[in-house]
This record gives sequence, C-alpha cells and structure tokens, in this order.
Amino acid sequence: MKALTSIEHSLAMAVSAGEGPEGPPKLADAVRHAVFPGGARIRPRVCLAVAAACGNDDAQLADATATAIELLHCASLVHDDLPCFDDAQTRRGRASVQYAYGQSLAVLAGDALIVLAFRTLAAGAAKSPLRLPALITMIAQSAGTPTGAVAGQAWESEQRVRLADYQRAKTGALFSASSMGGAQAAGVDPEPWRAFGDWLGEAYQAADDIRDVVGDPRVLGKPVGRDVALLRPSAAAQLGLQGAVTYFDTLVAKAIEAIPNCPGAAGLRALVDSESERLVPRESLEASLRSAA
Amino acid sequence: MKALTSIEHSLAMAVSAGEGPEGPPKLADAVRHAVFPGGARIRPRVCLAVAAACGNDDAQLADATATAIELLHCASLVHDDLPCFDDAQTRRGRASVQYAYGQSLAVLAGDALIVLAFRTLAAGAAKSPLRLPALITMIAQSAGTPTGAVAGQAWESEQRVRLADYQRAKTGALFSASSMGGAQAAGVDPEPWRAFGDWLGEAYQAADDIRDVVGDPRVLGKPVGRDVALLRPSAAAQLGLQGAVTYFDTLVAKAIEAIPNCPGAAGLRALVDSESERLVPRESLEASLRSAA
Repeated sequence: MKALTSIEHSLAMAVSAGEGPEGPPKLADAVRHAVFPGGARIRPRVCLAVAAACGNDDAQLADATATAIELLHCASLVHDDLPCFDDAQTRRGRASVQYAYGQSLAVLAGDALIVLAFRTLAAGAAKSPLRLPALITMIAQSAGTPTGAVAGQAWESEQRVRLADYQRAKTGALFSASSMGGAQAAGVDPEPWRAFGDWLGEAYQAADDIRDVVGDPRVLGKPVGRDVALLRPSAAAQLGLQGAVTYFDTLVAKAIEAIPNCPGAAGLRALVDSESERLVPRESLEASLRSAA
Repeated sequence: MKALTSIEHSLAMAVSAGEGPEGPPKLADAVRHAVFPGGARIRPRVCLAVAAACGNDDAQLADATATAIELLHCASLVHDDLPCFDDAQTRRGRASVQYAYGQSLAVLAGDALIVLAFRTLAAGAAKSPLRLPALITMIAQSAGTPTGAVAGQAWESEQRVRLADYQRAKTGALFSASSMGGAQAAGVDPEPWRAFGDWLGEAYQAADDIRDVVGDPRVLGKPVGRDVALLRPSAAAQLGLQGAVTYFDTLVAKAIEAIPNCPGAAGLRALVDSESERLVPRESLEASLRSAA
C-alpha cells in the first residue's frame, strides 16, 4: 500500500500545477487551505491499494487517479460547507474555506479543484493515453450527474429522498470511483471492483452518521449533530445508534467479501479492517451506548 | 461554419448524458436552465470554425470540444450570478439560475456543468484518443487556475488588479481555448491559433464593457451598468465610451490579422466581421455618444 506521504506529495504536485505568479494569490491560498492538511485520504488510499492489487503497471496513472479523486472530494467539502448548504465554520479542526476566505473564494476554490482534478488525470496519462477516455468518463459519472457526488448533494434540495439513493450518490460514488479507478489505471476491467467500493462507501457513510451522533468534535474537526440539526437523512436517525453500529459492521463485512480474487486481496482486507476501527471509535461509542441505556 | 442548430443539438446530447430518472430532478432542471436557451454560442462557433479551417478530420472531437467549452462558459455564468458575486436576478432575458432555483442548486448546477464538460470531451475522443490528454490539459488551463476563467473571477476578490490580467483570464482564456481547441481537435498544432483567440477575447470583453454602458437591458437580457455599480475594472470606465469603441475596433483588426494562413481563413474573417457588428450595436452606440456630447 502506498504510504500516506506519497499521496501528500502527489497532491502537492497537483496543487502546484494550478498555481503561478500570474494567478490571483487569495484563490491559491484558499485552494491550498481546502487540500492541506488533509483528512485520512481514505479514497486515494483505496485507489492505490486496488491498483497495487491489480498489478499497478502504470504508477503515474494510478497516482493521478488517486489524486484526482481526492481533489474532487476536497471540492465537494468546500462547497458543502457554504452557507447555502451546511454553513460549517470548521472543517478538519480549523476554519472552513468559506469561513476563512469568504463565500466567493470558497465557490471558486471548489471550481478550481474540480478543473484541477481532470487536468491531473490528463497529465498522468502520458504512458497509457488509451486508458484515459474510459477513466475520465467513470470519474465524471462518479463526481457529477445524475448519480455522482454533485447529484448526491442536490438530493438535499428535494422534498422526497430515498436514503440509499442520497448516500450512494453523495458518498458512495467517489468510493466506487476510487476502487474502479484503481483497477482502470492498472488496465484492468473496473466492473468487478464496483461492489467493493459501493460497500465501502456505504460503510463510511454509516460510520459518519454514527460519529455525527457520538463523535467528539475536537477529534472529528467539524461540528457534530449537524445531520439532526439539518433534518438530513441518517442511518443513526433511522435505525438508532445500536442499529446503526450493527449496520456498519454488516457493511464492512460485505466490502471484505466483495474484494475480487487477486494477489493483493490480503492487503485490502487489512486496510478495511484498520479503517473500520478508525471510522467508528468503539471506546466513545460504548460510553454513549452506556449513557443512553 | 457549423450551423447554430447543430451546436444546440450537441449541447442537448451532452446535457442529456448528465440526466437520468435516478437523478435529482430539480438539479437537472437547473442545469437545463443554465444552458438553454443559450446566447450567441460564440465560443463553440469559433471552435468549429477553426476546426473547419484546419481540415476537421474528426468532427466528433471538434463537436465535443466546442460543446465542452460552452458548458464551461455556462458554468461560469451560473456561478458569477450568485449573490456573493454579481447577485444577478436575470440572465439572457429571464431569471438567472440562482434566482429561479436558489443558491444551492446554482452552485451545484455550475459544478455539474464543469464535470459534464470533461465527460463530454472524453466521450468525443473515441476516434482520436491520443489527442485527448493535450486537449484536456489546454481546456483545464483555460477554465481553471492560475490563468483561466475561475482565476479571472477570483481577481475580483483581490485589492490590486491589472485590467489586462483580469480580462485575459476571465474572458480571454475560454476564447483562446475555443480557437486552440478547434485546432487541437483537428490534430493541428494549437499554438499558432492562440493569438487569434486572445484578440477575439479581448475584443469581446471590450464590447461587453461598451454594452454594459450603452446597451438596452431588454436586448442584452441582463442588467446594464453592473460594472460601474460593482466598481469592476472596465475598458469603458478607463477609456471613456469613444475610447473604448476605438479600442474595440483595434482589437477586432488584430484578431483578423492573427488568423494563421489556412484554407478556411476567409470564413473566419467573415465570422469576426459579422460578430463585431452584433457585439457593438452601432445604432444605440451612436445615440449614446450623441446624448453624451
């Protein structure tokens, strides 16, 4: 599995490519603020782990794919934090982009990151240009409309929403993109890798719902209780906390089962295992369940 | 030159690719509202005219390039109309996206259009996939940072702005992309085509400044006097109206001079001539100059 420092290096190179002395400096600062310091970088780690499991014959394209997906994820966070959505003042333990730089630069930083994601993909395709069209198509579907991350956020503007549709688009799409993109970058048919990313995305969303209820905002780096405050659909709200935890465990097991037979399967299982503990901190969870009992 | 109906058809196909029964319906409506009915579609017309002048051996890629650039232009308009920028209630003679659908869906419609632009490019590269990486790189540079349209808009958040930098990024970049992209889609070196797009973009911006002062809002479809109201840099504000018109005429002549020697040069000159009259409506202009005298 690719070390986290390598992912940070690739992100730094990609962000630098969008900077220059001739550009507006505040926007460059806002874009950096949106990307660094990052969170767990789970999407690029999944992407690179899948690429490695698939043989990873083009490390440059795998890096570019992982980086592009993380940039798209950062873009979605910046726009989700805008006053017209979550109105979040904090993100990853410090000021959100909109709070630090204002709405205008937050809108533009998100736009810049979306564009930069596709530029990064194109720049990484020097060795395997024939893989680029299908890779861009898949990532654009996962990021955009009708079933990607942008569409997922737009479900919050609808009167009737099915929880599964909302979560699959808002969170699941970039997870399945991470899994499928890792395979595609390695020249492998991505379709068998869709289910792994789908289950992982659902598990991640369930974990997020749980942490929104029980998490410590100093650890999460963002306000807790937002889903309830914003009347958003949530597994924890629908199933109760204990039910949501059982649901999470089921989803993690499904993700592990869905890993296609390949040389790197063991490494992937280990990644999912370690992530599941990180995502749902059992200690604070058990304290919450005790106090609720 | 490609008929306008063909451009509309290509845009309709691209927008449809981002729709589906499983997507959020209000966002789909907002995206359609952002693209249809359109303006003069000058950027895709320039792109297709240049592609034709360069031999246009891959009509599908030329169409995709023209369509992608127009989608990026529509995205920039939707975001520019947001309350944190122009706060425009009207666009193209009817409600702006943010006024008709609210800020949230306007942010997401712009995001969806940016993603759709790159998806459209990838879908159009079936015949000439080896042209895709450079084409995406060029278009991403023209749309994003540090010198593309997103960066151009961000100059409005800076204290010190050079008019030329601001206009070249905000308007010029997608014009030079139109010109260079037409050449690239046809497999021709785009660099000699940069100057034509640059001059055309500067002429277009100067025309916009003039129309902001003298235009009839019923004809323009947007409020006039916004540049002065928002204290934005403007050729008309810096040079006076008569000076701005002389500047516009010089820029049009420069654009015509910059057309590289090619079979389609005459058609391009005719396009620029007809556009210059459309962009600066001489009749209302002369009335304004008379009343100012």
